[in-house]
Amino acid sequence: MFIVMHQGHTERELADILEQLAHMGFAGHVSQGVERTVVGVVGQTFPELKETLEMWPGVEEVVPISKPHKLSGREFQPKDTVIKVGDVTIGGESVVVIAGPCAVETEDMLLEAARAVKAAGASILRGGAFKPSTSPYSFRGLGMDGLKFLAQASRETGMPIITEVMSPQDVELVSRYSDILQVGTRNMQNFALLDEVGKTKKPVMLKRGLSATIQEWLLSAEYILAQGNRQVMLCERGIRTFETFTRNTMDISAIPIIKKLSHLPIIADPSHGTGKWYLVTPMSMAAVAAGADGLMIEVHPSPEHALKDGAQSLNFNNFQQLMSRVIPVAASVGRKMA
Amino acid sequence: MFIVMHQGHTERELADILEQLAHMGFAGHVSQGVERTVVGVVGQTFPELKETLEMWPGVEEVVPISKPHKLSGREFQPKDTVIKVGDVTIGGESVVVIAGPCAVETEDMLLEAARAVKAAGASILRGGAFKPSTSPYSFRGLGMDGLKFLAQASRETGMPIITEVMSPQDVELVSRYSDILQVGTRNMQNFALLDEVGKTKKPVMLKRGLSATIQEWLLSAEYILAQGNRQVMLCERGIRTFETFTRNTMDISAIPIIKKLSHLPIIADPSHGTGKWYLVTPMSMAAVAAGADGLMIEVHPSPEHALKDGAQSLNFNNFQQLMSRVIPVAASVGRKMA
Amino acid sequence: MFIVMHQGHTERELADILEQLAHMGFAGHVSQGVERTVVGVVGQTFPELKETLEMWPGVEEVVPISKPHKLSGREFQPKDTVIKVGDVTIGGESVVVIAGPCAVETEDMLLEAARAVKAAGASILRGGAFKPSTSPYSFRGLGMDGLKFLAQASRETGMPIITEVMSPQDVELVSRYSDILQVGTRNMQNFALLDEVGKTKKPVMLKRGLSATIQEWLLSAEYILAQGNRQVMLCERGIRTFETFTRNTMDISAIPIIKKLSHLPIIADPSHGTGKWYLVTPMSMAAVAAGADGLMIEVHPSPEHALKDGAQSLNFNNFQQLMSRVIPVAASVGRKMA
Amino acid sequence: MFIVMHQGHTERELADILEQLAHMGFAGHVSQGVERTVVGVVGQTFPELKETLEMWPGVEEVVPISKPHKLSGREFQPKDTVIKVGDVTIGGESVVVIAGPCAVETEDMLLEAARAVKAAGASILRGGAFKPSTSPYSFRGLGMDGLKFLAQASRETGMPIITEVMSPQDVELVSRYSDILQVGTRNMQNFALLDEVGKTKKPVMLKRGLSATIQEWLLSAEYILAQGNRQVMLCERGIRTFETFTRNTMDISAIPIIKKLSHLPIIADPSHGTGKWYLVTPMSMAAVAAGADGLMIEVHPSPEHALKDGAQSLNFNNFQQLMSRVIPVAASVGRKMA
Repeated sequence: MFIVMHQGHTERELADILEQLAHMGFAGHVSQGVERTVVGVVGQTFPELKETLEMWPGVEEVVPISKPHKLSGREFQPKDTVIKVGDVTIGGESVVVIAGPCAVETEDMLLEAARAVKAAGASILRGGAFKPSTSPYSFRGLGMDGLKFLAQASRETGMPIITEVMSPQDVELVSRYSDILQVGTRNMQNFALLDEVGKTKKPVMLKRGLSATIQEWLLSAEYILAQGNRQVMLCERGIRTFETFTRNTMDISAIPIIKKLSHLPIIADPSHGTGKWYLVTPMSMAAVAAGADGLMIEVHPSPEHALKDGAQSLNFNNFQQLMSRVIPVAASVGRKMA
Repeated sequence: MFIVMHQGHTERELADILEQLAHMGFAGHVSQGVERTVVGVVGQTFPELKETLEMWPGVEEVVPISKPHKLSGREFQPKDTVIKVGDVTIGGESVVVIAGPCAVETEDMLLEAARAVKAAGASILRGGAFKPSTSPYSFRGLGMDGLKFLAQASRETGMPIITEVMSPQDVELVSRYSDILQVGTRNMQNFALLDEVGKTKKPVMLKRGLSATIQEWLLSAEYILAQGNRQVMLCERGIRTFETFTRNTMDISAIPIIKKLSHLPIIADPSHGTGKWYLVTPMSMAAVAAGADGLMIEVHPSPEHALKDGAQSLNFNNFQQLMSRVIPVAASVGRKMA
Repeated sequence: MFIVMHQGHTERELADILEQLAHMGFAGHVSQGVERTVVGVVGQTFPELKETLEMWPGVEEVVPISKPHKLSGREFQPKDTVIKVGDVTIGGESVVVIAGPCAVETEDMLLEAARAVKAAGASILRGGAFKPSTSPYSFRGLGMDGLKFLAQASRETGMPIITEVMSPQDVELVSRYSDILQVGTRNMQNFALLDEVGKTKKPVMLKRGLSATIQEWLLSAEYILAQGNRQVMLCERGIRTFETFTRNTMDISAIPIIKKLSHLPIIADPSHGTGKWYLVTPMSMAAVAAGADGLMIEVHPSPEHALKDGAQSLNFNNFQQLMSRVIPVAASVGRKMA
Repeated sequence: MFIVMHQGHTERELADILEQLAHMGFAGHVSQGVERTVVGVVGQTFPELKETLEMWPGVEEVVPISKPHKLSGREFQPKDTVIKVGDVTIGGESVVVIAGPCAVETEDMLLEAARAVKAAGASILRGGAFKPSTSPYSFRGLGMDGLKFLAQASRETGMPIITEVMSPQDVELVSRYSDILQVGTRNMQNFALLDEVGKTKKPVMLKRGLSATIQEWLLSAEYILAQGNRQVMLCERGIRTFETFTRNTMDISAIPIIKKLSHLPIIADPSHGTGKWYLVTPMSMAAVAAGADGLMIEVHPSPEHALKDGAQSLNFNNFQQLMSRVIPVAASVGRKMA
């Protein structure tokens, strides 16, 4: 971080700044240019520091140089993070497919879906037991029963499972049943929850917030990593824009950006990313072509009767077609489907 | 909610739809037009129903008629909700001013700020003990100590206090110290937290999410109301747009919209809404002119040394000026400043 | 503008940069800090320069210091621009009200509206002869006839008129009839049109683009100013966000921001800014409280029969009420209504 | 379009509505449901009609059924539009690559770029003669000289050319030199320009506006089609969102959406779509996987010295790599590169 002084700053202002910096534990190094004086700030800076320093008399602008995320950055760890869940490897050579219903509705329906997605090539089962819902009057999930049905489906099919945890108090409970903990979009900046999943030894999937910048997303990952849990994967699921045709605007560019900035695996969720089932296959193909490490797809035995998110769910037949179209795209970028 | 059928729908499709609706507990009433068949759906519908029904064969479009929020709506309660906190009335004739530092930093600083804002006309003291922060490496608040300092400042000045609660586990603790519970922007859809504050008897201030629509905001209020806590006030604090000059774009129109749709009091927070101290006074004036029931203003003894959000904080002198400029605007719309 | 070098840059890279800068007509001044080398760039820089320089080997980041707008800036002209149109003064002590129908529909209707808004206190008549419309199948205005009706209404009422010009070819024609030329939202970056209105001697109202930043807006004003026409006023009319309740999100903060950055008058258009007639009065009050120099209001004898934008138009009675509520707000901020 | 009446509407209100509709040339057909009365509106409706009708007494909501775009829709023409430019086919089996510098800078540089992109597999040459620029002080293109250099490069390489036209007056001039007319982002709703290019016999590429919805984009295409020019191709080039890491957020989902709604070819521009050269190749791969009919890529002999958009331009070597990576992706979706 460094401070650009106003053209007409006084010596006193400069001296005050150096004193203040020292007082805050930073070193300040002055460079005198022809038109401007610049003060380099040395020490462990943080984002909010910029706006504070910009209030000081004589300061024109403060420019942060170092990126605010550390443990999630390529500088900290150049090599890709690879996460092992049972026999499945996330972030390695293969593209992983996570599939299943939005919400666990009944034990039978979940088992039926689990067998179908496994047969079609998925390797991880998804399903919501605790469901976030914008309205308190909508279906909010089966809760404990949902967790048990998921565990049962995992035993029967051999697939690891992922399910969402919505509250710090539930982290221990959900960890007992689920192989991967999902932190949902609406909780990306639920810092108490991030701290709590960071204390577990379970892999965590962190979904991007509805209007989160990529930097904010990586900083939320940083919360989990800073607690000692290094098994974090990110999931792009669409951002909120002015476009109303799709539920969200899926930011495919986030995939190569994350690959550049971070070593963490990146999963694409075109079901939430678009909200329309007929866009899920082309967007899956796009995501894999852009470098995604995995796909998360909503599949339902009968989407037109789903309690939640039916419009974006594939039926079994459409999911098979998705797989048959994504496999050649993966091959074209040198990857296999797990 | 009603269903518009495709022009070429079959009798079988229509019959199936009526059967399915009955199966889900709804009644369906068919209207045959010249060009279109329309099915009225009678029963307690919810937002997600639309997308499910739109997947049914023969359906062109589903149109929700009833608004999804109920307890927060003017239809449910035409009369304004008025909240009493100690001697202070929120949502009544007077415009209430809530002021204080973004974060509680030290006991002395808080007391100094509390006395200054009271002297200038504020009637409720704000201050963060638990601070949400995008980065785990930034200042995250004094926690328990911050709560105690707030309680002490309240005793010394007689002002009720408001502070943020960030986790369901903390609700009981924070309720012991604070007169009003604040649910922050990043937690507007933290449904576990909404349920929990809904179970208390404390007034709750619900800030609008960074990219929340007004309907989603009211639905989050609905979570609290549905738990039995009817003392909810809303706070507009800026939404995320493409504009980068301001930290957020403050949506002043949300004020008259909330007044029209809902009976809940609406507070404006121009400090977060703009992110720049010199915009706080004009935006406060605009908010009061548009009908806000209160203002929440960040005030710091020395903003240029604030640990958080200094750039948007007023010093004591600027806060006095704000009050002197807002009072005549309030008078011009027939209101007093509390 | 200055260049921050990478920590490990070579001497050769630095020498190359200085040579390139000289080649482009800039002087480069090197400041050696402890951790970073910074090169100040002296000369007439422009926004695109940043991204070009950031591609040069050894460069970490390029930081623009000087603001890209010049003639529109307070640095260039500290004193407010005041525009005289007939007897009306825009940008002075009084708040000006521009009112009239969205589109000129018939001569009678325009005259009726003109008399009504004048009687209620408006001082400039608005009305569209050439109407931008998203669909080629919608009403696109009366064109030449509309201009004549406007001129006639001006003669009968004595009010100056403002109407939109949509194409460089039409600038001369519209200038013959209209006292103020309006450049619409969709043409804010129609640079050929900006150049053309800049060559006239008519005052120009430049509306903010649907998704224009404040800086881009001022740069578009700069196009007009740079052609020699200094009679430019800006008009905030709402920006595009994710919120769907309102047609646009009116950015009231743009008013004090423009007042700070620029000397140009700023008008508020709450009709387009909200798209709902019942929000027009509260948003007018907010705009005036925030410092707007004028209001532009759509008024129609019978909004429910308007060919365009009826939903956001006031009838005569509602417009009178608007005036009666705005006048005290203007007084509370020390201004009169013209 | 149909009208949903309020629950408590009067017979008189209904009668008035039917009369008004008749007066406007529409037929109204009443369907009486149990809870609601619905009036079907038959005739050539348009988007603005909805808001007008919603103002009528007794009306709850107006629901448009028919899509507002006609000539651009799949209903009007189920078969894909295929555009022939010289030997090049756009919208057919092959994926077309359009490449060249952002702006024509010198004749030599253009020729060098033209030869290089042709050798690497591009089939159409791009280059700006008239350049839109947010600032009047930035480079605005060589104008006439640029057109001549483009024509010369076309003769030497045999490649058709595409260049932007910014003003209705320039359409004839640019048509004399260019094989394809480009309407830029900032002019997507410059209706005078759309009308004018619609009157030519030249193929037109219509770029999506910075904040245009897909429906608005198709309606702008409709302007051109309605003038008789059926050779229209669309170009997705990123939309404006809150994310600041990229220059725009490229909406890859627009590709399959356009393919579904319209018969017009869709081209992807990842150079403007991202603003960063290192994202251009992965986003090109994503676009082709999602079904794009072509790519438009900025290539410059020496991007670090480009007068415009250097940061998003590929050098020759990087462009060759792009081609070698995109070809297998195209093959994986059953397409060749032209």
